[in-house]
Amino acid sequence: MGTITKALDLLGYFSRTRPSIGLGEFVRLTGRDKATVHRHLVELEQNGFLEQDSVTRAYRLGPAILRLTSVRESTFPTRAVLRPLVTELSEDLDELVHASMLQGRILSPIFHADPKRHGTQVSFDEAEMQPLHATASGLVVLAFADDALREAVLAGPLAAHTDRTITDPEALRARLVEIRAAGLARAAGGFDTEVASQAAPLFGASGAVIGALSVAMPSGRGTDDRLESFRARLCAGAARATVSLGGTVPPDLAALWAAVSDPRDTKRA
Amino acid sequence: MGTITKALDLLGYFSRTRPSIGLGEFVRLTGRDKATVHRHLVELEQNGFLEQDSVTRAYRLGPAILRLTSVRESTFPTRAVLRPLVTELSEDLDELVHASMLQGRILSPIFHADPKRHGTQVSFDEAEMQPLHATASGLVVLAFADDALREAVLAGPLAAHTDRTITDPEALRARLVEIRAAGLARAAGGFDTEVASQAAPLFGASGAVIGALSVAMPSGRGTDDRLESFRARLCAGAARATVSLGGTVPPDLAALWAAVSDPRDTKRA
Repeated sequence: MGTITKALDLLGYFSRTRPSIGLGEFVRLTGRDKATVHRHLVELEQNGFLEQDSVTRAYRLGPAILRLTSVRESTFPTRAVLRPLVTELSEDLDELVHASMLQGRILSPIFHADPKRHGTQVSFDEAEMQPLHATASGLVVLAFADDALREAVLAGPLAAHTDRTITDPEALRARLVEIRAAGLARAAGGFDTEVASQAAPLFGASGAVIGALSVAMPSGRGTDDRLESFRARLCAGAARATVSLGGTVPPDLAALWAAVSDPRDTKRA
Repeated sequence: MGTITKALDLLGYFSRTRPSIGLGEFVRLTGRDKATVHRHLVELEQNGFLEQDSVTRAYRLGPAILRLTSVRESTFPTRAVLRPLVTELSEDLDELVHASMLQGRILSPIFHADPKRHGTQVSFDEAEMQPLHATASGLVVLAFADDALREAVLAGPLAAHTDRTITDPEALRARLVEIRAAGLARAAGGFDTEVASQAAPLFGASGAVIGALSVAMPSGRGTDDRLESFRARLCAGAARATVSLGGTVPPDLAALWAAVSDPRDTKRA
């Protein structure tokens, strides 16, 4: 591990449950020698990446980080970050791919790309908000959301967008359990009778679900076999998008996704 | 300059106007040798502090910074960051000190501290929003605000909170010019007839004014001489608070503040 990596690695020990860390605790956490750790902490502090509490002498994350985030957010906002990733995945899957972010109780589309290589295509409207109980994106967000949001949505009203929308709270609850176990959601005809889609969740810095990455196609092309063949690449894309947004995929889900094999790898083997 | 500082220093070259930087441009900007710069860039990228564009090979700020900001904001939000600074300044000045942040067209109090060492004191209500044209805090924010906000407020209505509130737009405009030249604002009786106050502006990451740091006292104690003796410490406090919030004081104002001498230093000399 290089000097720079060793120093930056110290910043990674801070979390919501460990907001400030003293020199002794850093030595314990890293197993490194005290003089080196101290030298790194001082240099990080001198550059504003750490602040030292004047009373306790413990370190906390510093203001330089806030300034850098502000620069990154103003120059590479969510949409700019997701654009290349969504475009690449749509080229790879030969279907429309879209990313959407949770806003209160609805999903707001952020970016979509469609290579349009088929005779029929989904008409996607980036201005159309998506209900959480009726699309693959919404269902996967709901499945991985905290209890408060899930219960609020389950309490209704649950509008029937088509005759295939799940509007019974208990049926929906059972469906969400299946989706959590699968690590992604499939939905056909719940929002538009002619559209099938498959979605994986995106997570923020605190590990909370913040949106979804989804592939959508006319129902005729959305066969189980074909959707199955997309699984590994969709999960890998959601993992990459989560990291690009500064987030973290919860460890158990990351393990589940890693276990999904890409059918192309099987062919190659 | 140590290795860690040299690497972190590279991150500081990114700004709103320079969102991505290639290896060659980094070499030009820093005057350092290409091999060293490249090694630092790779190590920053490996730790998520930079991302490399797959097409242009240029670097931009990475997602690790977003995660760290999220941890800092959730554990040391604005109020927690300002608390020790406001408390210390109030102890030093022997008067009530408060910090407030701009929210649309009003100032929202964030934290106040009063050592209560006098027979009379200002009763401060942290729930009371402050109009921009009637308090020292509001006036200093208005003086350093962008044209859009200033013109919107000057367009009125300008409520008379006391008979000393400036409600004439042209008189107010002239007052704001004086305040900008002074680098801080004094106001007596414009919001409450019995209160005198003096405020300096706080700035955000983009250099825009985001709030104010203010000392307030019963008018009887707010003599010109006494307020004058507070100037240097108030400006120094506002500079420190700005840095703590991840912001930057505009260079010309920083120079103006640095030129204000602390009367205690003169005594010492």
